[in-house]
Amino acid sequence: MGEFELIRNFFAAAPCAQGGEGVALGIGDDCALLAVPPGEQLAISTDTLVAGVHFADPCDPFLLGQRSLAVAVSDLAAMGATPVAFTLALTLPTGTSDWLEAFARGLNLMAQNCRVALVGGDTTRGPLSLTMTVFGRVPTGLALTRSGARPGDLLCVGGELGNGAGALPLVLGQRTADAAIAEPLLAHYWSPQPQLALGQALRGRATAVLDISDGLLADCGHIALASKVGIRVERSRLPLSKALLAFLGQSDAEQAALSGGDDYVLAFTLPPAELPSLLADGWPIHVLGQVVAGQGVILLDADGHDITPPIRGYQHFRETP
Amino acid sequence: MGEFELIRNFFAAAPCAQGGEGVALGIGDDCALLAVPPGEQLAISTDTLVAGVHFADPCDPFLLGQRSLAVAVSDLAAMGATPVAFTLALTLPTGTSDWLEAFARGLNLMAQNCRVALVGGDTTRGPLSLTMTVFGRVPTGLALTRSGARPGDLLCVGGELGNGAGALPLVLGQRTADAAIAEPLLAHYWSPQPQLALGQALRGRATAVLDISDGLLADCGHIALASKVGIRVERSRLPLSKALLAFLGQSDAEQAALSGGDDYVLAFTLPPAELPSLLADGWPIHVLGQVVAGQGVILLDADGHDITPPIRGYQHFRETP
Repeated sequence: MGEFELIRNFFAAAPCAQGGEGVALGIGDDCALLAVPPGEQLAISTDTLVAGVHFADPCDPFLLGQRSLAVAVSDLAAMGATPVAFTLALTLPTGTSDWLEAFARGLNLMAQNCRVALVGGDTTRGPLSLTMTVFGRVPTGLALTRSGARPGDLLCVGGELGNGAGALPLVLGQRTADAAIAEPLLAHYWSPQPQLALGQALRGRATAVLDISDGLLADCGHIALASKVGIRVERSRLPLSKALLAFLGQSDAEQAALSGGDDYVLAFTLPPAELPSLLADGWPIHVLGQVVAGQGVILLDADGHDITPPIRGYQHFRETP
Repeated sequence: MGEFELIRNFFAAAPCAQGGEGVALGIGDDCALLAVPPGEQLAISTDTLVAGVHFADPCDPFLLGQRSLAVAVSDLAAMGATPVAFTLALTLPTGTSDWLEAFARGLNLMAQNCRVALVGGDTTRGPLSLTMTVFGRVPTGLALTRSGARPGDLLCVGGELGNGAGALPLVLGQRTADAAIAEPLLAHYWSPQPQLALGQALRGRATAVLDISDGLLADCGHIALASKVGIRVERSRLPLSKALLAFLGQSDAEQAALSGGDDYVLAFTLPPAELPSLLADGWPIHVLGQVVAGQGVILLDADGHDITPPIRGYQHFRETP
């Protein structure tokens, strides 16, 4: 048995590969089989993470396993889907059993957290990269897309912004900070919590939803484009964590929240009448602005002045040549 | 708009990305949505191809696009599934528009051929590799797995063997041959035809099925292991093409058929009573041996002597260090 067959068997024996609701056939055949209940559709998303581009190399394999699955599952949250399964295509320069054991442990923990089963994949030799494809189920007609925002809707987010980007200097070892600051930021970076329950609660209520991966302004731009509307964002309403403010100060914290990316918090547009019941249910929703007729994204200061910067998405911390 | 956003838009505009039967939402949102009819399940398979490991680098991007999708779809054929959709995760060192245009043209041609729609993916910077995840639908309970072979079944294949491995010296430029030899071998390598119709015809008839990617003996070993049976293979019955025999001679052609891999022809086990009707329907089925009680794979010569070699799967032509 070759090294990579051993690795495949290692993943096949992992707790998260032992099936789950909706998994009719798991790892080990030419295909996996998923059962989709009548009245539901299957939501699918694929993400690739490349060493040196999307994550530092070397990095902690436990944290990498945890984070890469969370980032992929976050796209299911953004559709209002319930996670079912995922596949993992892992390209490794060399397979050390320590690395794999730790990676699989992180993967298993997040898989358990999100109730998602590993149903297949591929293991190949080459420069380190991961491609995960995640599957979720969603009632037919209720998936949350980016294209339904209407003038008059509120622009909302489901949590604090900027923590992912704020953590980056800590992740890269460029800066240090007291534990009270570093721990929550690093936890947010390495173990983002896909907002699955919020996504499901928004079905039939929100008009457009996505998860913030490119940065608030760039991602609002995606909604504006898909929905053919304009979006006004009020800088004074940005929800910023104490740790981020203590680490970066007000101005850089706002910058991280607006353009940093890697938050994996839901951003959505909501008819105003839907807000009270969601707040009454205890969802941590922050209203940041509103949808208007027009196009593009406008950033306003507290006095209502247009302070829109050139909008760029998340810049990977290093691009290989 | 960044380079990679341009590339994503390029793929989103490709003919194969314009939807198809079963595709409720295609490229452009957080997830794609697939509709699975009642009474059917979704079959899923993931394959990664790494430059320098699974294909020569550089190679013709048109042929690469064609081949990589065919190889992935072949796993759907092996389950008896009807293709619906696929995702493409493409990691590129640099994106030249010529390369992408040719790659997409090859991808489109094979997608059209297999009636499969591109519904999502990811484009990242890094060393060239591709991960494709393919989706097909199959009636619940009728998917063809590897685990149902029973003693007394016939071992069959759906076409000639060894052409893929035989083509490799031509692909790598290590040898040349007359067009009458080179063309059919190279066509088989670069444009394998997933045996989708045969797979569907085998539903409810074959007891175990897979597509030959690792080589006949190694792949029979997978069926033997999953089905807890032994398999006898008769070397004198190997179906070999004229081009392969002319190029390699009898002995090396047999070796390519037994251990070469890359054939993407279906291998399956069949109760003898099922054979006549399949032959009458014109399927190009070759009987190569039989399933017996026991375990493992035994290769027999024309005199019934055991000539089983140490069984190894397909060895990628070069492994990066």
